[in-house]
Amino acid sequence: MMKNTKTVAVKASGNYDITIGKGLLSNVGEILKGIKKPCRTVIVTDSNVDPLYSDAVIESLEKAGYSADKYVFAAGEKSKNAATFVEILEFLASEKITRSDLLVALGGGVVGDITGFAASCYLRGIDFVQIPTTLLAAVDSSVGGKTAIDLKAGKNLAGAFYQPIAVICDTDTFETLPEKEVACGYAEVIKYGILFEKEFCDSLMSGKCDIDEIVEKCVIFKRDIVERDEFDNGERKLLNLGHTAAHGIEKVSGYSLTHGQAVAVGTVIATKIAENFGICKEGTYREVEKMLEEFNLPTKYDITAEELCEAALSDKKRQSSKLTLVLPEKIGKCVLYDVDVENLKDIFSKAIG
Amino acid sequence: MMKNTKTVAVKASGNYDITIGKGLLSNVGEILKGIKKPCRTVIVTDSNVDPLYSDAVIESLEKAGYSADKYVFAAGEKSKNAATFVEILEFLASEKITRSDLLVALGGGVVGDITGFAASCYLRGIDFVQIPTTLLAAVDSSVGGKTAIDLKAGKNLAGAFYQPIAVICDTDTFETLPEKEVACGYAEVIKYGILFEKEFCDSLMSGKCDIDEIVEKCVIFKRDIVERDEFDNGERKLLNLGHTAAHGIEKVSGYSLTHGQAVAVGTVIATKIAENFGICKEGTYREVEKMLEEFNLPTKYDITAEELCEAALSDKKRQSSKLTLVLPEKIGKCVLYDVDVENLKDIFSKAIG
Repeated sequence: MMKNTKTVAVKASGNYDITIGKGLLSNVGEILKGIKKPCRTVIVTDSNVDPLYSDAVIESLEKAGYSADKYVFAAGEKSKNAATFVEILEFLASEKITRSDLLVALGGGVVGDITGFAASCYLRGIDFVQIPTTLLAAVDSSVGGKTAIDLKAGKNLAGAFYQPIAVICDTDTFETLPEKEVACGYAEVIKYGILFEKEFCDSLMSGKCDIDEIVEKCVIFKRDIVERDEFDNGERKLLNLGHTAAHGIEKVSGYSLTHGQAVAVGTVIATKIAENFGICKEGTYREVEKMLEEFNLPTKYDITAEELCEAALSDKKRQSSKLTLVLPEKIGKCVLYDVDVENLKDIFSKAIG
Repeated sequence: MMKNTKTVAVKASGNYDITIGKGLLSNVGEILKGIKKPCRTVIVTDSNVDPLYSDAVIESLEKAGYSADKYVFAAGEKSKNAATFVEILEFLASEKITRSDLLVALGGGVVGDITGFAASCYLRGIDFVQIPTTLLAAVDSSVGGKTAIDLKAGKNLAGAFYQPIAVICDTDTFETLPEKEVACGYAEVIKYGILFEKEFCDSLMSGKCDIDEIVEKCVIFKRDIVERDEFDNGERKLLNLGHTAAHGIEKVSGYSLTHGQAVAVGTVIATKIAENFGICKEGTYREVEKMLEEFNLPTKYDITAEELCEAALSDKKRQSSKLTLVLPEKIGKCVLYDVDVENLKDIFSKAIG
């Protein structure tokens, strides 16, 4: 029986529930049974997650009457490429998986993104479920239906908007995460606080929040944005807070900085820009730094304005001669702010100087 | 100026016009200007079509203020694979094509299917235009938003439902088609007649139809079905008339028979099954044969019931223990008919015996 679980309903092009709780891996079959009749399932996971959690999920699925196959690829962002994507599709086809079957993405953001994209393309779309096993995936990539792979020219350049039929988040799985990975998740958690709610930031700093509550709060923030702008034509861009600079930082670091660490530094840079523009009051920058430090996240990285510029301008969201920055007005409220591409180097330069 | 063009409006998840006429390649830019402001375009085409038509399209685009790049791949069904698909995506990314730019699919079904699929995935979806240069693509694959690539296990196993922003059909391009290719298109044209309208069959047989009228009529038939069942959950299955057997025939022939030729044979088999079931009156079978013969299409192929069965059962549309056949009640009206998989061999056996 499932006790103390939280459910967040998402109404997008597909409607689905996000279930959050402890020990949920052993309830995956039971939860699915409420929304899809027993069928064949293929669990897609990576070499880190597989030995930890595949067995529990398979057992739960089989107990509920589903059959379960498994596809495992090498863990890491390097696997989030076209080759892995095609291998998954070929595997599904060779196993004669049909339109009425189900993919199960078991793992972090890489697993969720690539599995969701494969689900959207295989036979022009079959159902899939997200089972995030990292805090970062739980609060960010598993919700909202953005799926993707990286191309040679950059991250997330191919993909689909494709909603899962369920997200099942067992917060016990976060306990096996390395500390750096947990911090990475908190970078996105803090991002939501800066974007939407000062009180949430305060309660994070007080250390009194239960992890289930934190995840619930974040997915509600994200859900609300996704419901209003599923296809990323407006408000959803707010979720890129810290990401414009983060892409450059990740790249320059040779991906030795995690996405979350880069977002942390990027958020500090965005806040400094906001201060320089007079959009937020002086000192906001320091407040943001303090929060990130509290969660063992970096606030600085040795990068030049040129490097930040170059990465920002190769970003796929750019249109024409303007670039949209996400800037805090205060902790709990941010705005979209268009700047001329030609001023960008100067803007970055003043923010990191 | 465009004289004597026909326009068919499609209202699906995206709304768009199909423009049909002679000499339209030189009007592509002009037509596009009415729906999308000048941007970068990438023409995707194959090695057969490129030397014939790319220059005319590029000239027309540039005259209207669009810039045009080109991606050419080797002609043939063999290119409709994951490797070509990924190469197109990497090309777009390396050229820094943005979300506001445009892909132009210039060619037959292979070009249209793979380009549409790439457009649906690149940056999670950018606009694309279909410019079919074969009769088959004009009446079938360019309309309705089904895009796909083949996987090792079979044809069209990965793809997306993704509508173009326009279809521009220059019927002059059919004049460079080999006779076999034209016949291939007529297999689908006759299919529409058997599915929807006896009078259309009669006028085809009379030889009095203008090619523009034939294309217009067929895309209206298809448009009407797509508008009612865009995602292929019901009525759209009617368009598979002749295709269940055709897939097996293509395969067994080692693809020496074209898709259209296989569909012709498959349509005869479907009609024979309908006669055997007493669904249509005796002699319908002979009528269908006569029409196909008139257009130089085969009506028989040396294949066993086992081979037909195996191919039919690996078809992606199959669910559980039933297979849906499309069977003529009479020329101009067909029905969906579920049969038990276990009876299938016997059914085929009696139809080809």
